[in-house]
Amino acid sequence: MDFFDVVHTQRSIRRFKPDPVPEEALWKMLDAAIRAPSGSNLQPWIWLVVRDQTKREVLAQTVRARFDSGGRLEQMRQRAQKMEDASQRRMLLRAADFFANVAQAPVLIIPCLVGVTSPTADARSLLAGSSIYGAVQNLMLAARAQGLGTVLTTFQASIEDVLRKEFHLPEGAVPVCIVPVGYPDGQRFGPTTRKPPEAVTHWDDWGALKARA
Amino acid sequence: MDFFDVVHTQRSIRRFKPDPVPEEALWKMLDAAIRAPSGSNLQPWIWLVVRDQTKREVLAQTVRARFDSGGRLEQMRQRAQKMEDASQRRMLLRAADFFANVAQAPVLIIPCLVGVTSPTADARSLLAGSSIYGAVQNLMLAARAQGLGTVLTTFQASIEDVLRKEFHLPEGAVPVCIVPVGYPDGQRFGPTTRKPPEAVTHWDDWGALKARA
Repeated sequence: MDFFDVVHTQRSIRRFKPDPVPEEALWKMLDAAIRAPSGSNLQPWIWLVVRDQTKREVLAQTVRARFDSGGRLEQMRQRAQKMEDASQRRMLLRAADFFANVAQAPVLIIPCLVGVTSPTADARSLLAGSSIYGAVQNLMLAARAQGLGTVLTTFQASIEDVLRKEFHLPEGAVPVCIVPVGYPDGQRFGPTTRKPPEAVTHWDDWGALKARA
Repeated sequence: MDFFDVVHTQRSIRRFKPDPVPEEALWKMLDAAIRAPSGSNLQPWIWLVVRDQTKREVLAQTVRARFDSGGRLEQMRQRAQKMEDASQRRMLLRAADFFANVAQAPVLIIPCLVGVTSPTADARSLLAGSSIYGAVQNLMLAARAQGLGTVLTTFQASIEDVLRKEFHLPEGAVPVCIVPVGYPDGQRFGPTTRKPPEAVTHWDDWGALKARA
């Protein structure tokens, strides 16, 4: 696929078919991920690929228990129903469904930062993120290029204790997101809703906008 | 260009020709950047594009003054000369040259996080990084797809006071990196040195490696 077609049609996929993902497709995603730059080319990452159904269900149950406590998912759905912006409404409804069904994705990838010990960039800092989230984006684009859907979620932060125990993460490893992977079910790739570049680019000084020629 | 060709030949470019970068090429990079996912699709970013030569020189002088204090660049060069790994040696020498000549890149792009106020994800946190470094990676890949070189640098952290003053950054804006852009001078795109995916992927449990079929 053409590079710009991939980039312009990547979108968050939150409903997945149960079909398994071919292992070769996963290797191709990982092979793209590790090409991304990282500080001093240290490649401070481990890619934890979870296909085991029991483990996926443990994660899903934990997510449900924590996000649904006090009826938060139902509140999320009600809030969505009141939204005027159709695109925002759809996103929130899908997010609520997704949290209720995390385990339906046949694969969950949990990228972890490892070996980040610099005092100026500890593993929980913004700067450490510069050495892994680019690789995560490569991973997701390579999925899209193969017709596979993904969504960048950060609920790992809410269930880190369970992740550590279930997958025996060593002390220095920090999970930075959870990326479900699978074939899209009823969602199409395609153009996304974004503010145009002209609105978010400043030229030579803060606030200096410019029209596109 | 084919998506996988772009991803597999992206590499850090640290020497640039003085030729200007066509504005349309910059818009194409920005248009790719903003397609990346961000938390709740909030797109918490401003892309500060610096072409003004005086401003680039102010930044370069500041970088030189701070990185070269106490002969750090010379130490970096000497350390590089002693390295056995040719690829590491080249990288460090180029990094030292680069710090001495930041302003030679005709364009510097400074992506800033804005509007991140969630208590669980302040703008200096790892999680905030998940909402912008993927977009930065899109930006750099879109440069590569057009024959333009970039390098992800994080020296913004060392000169943030000067950036704030020079570009009038508002309090809530946090520069997350500095990406020089230009046509490569004497450096080629092409395969990079990376640990293979098999060495950094764990399957269903920490430490569980798997050979590629």
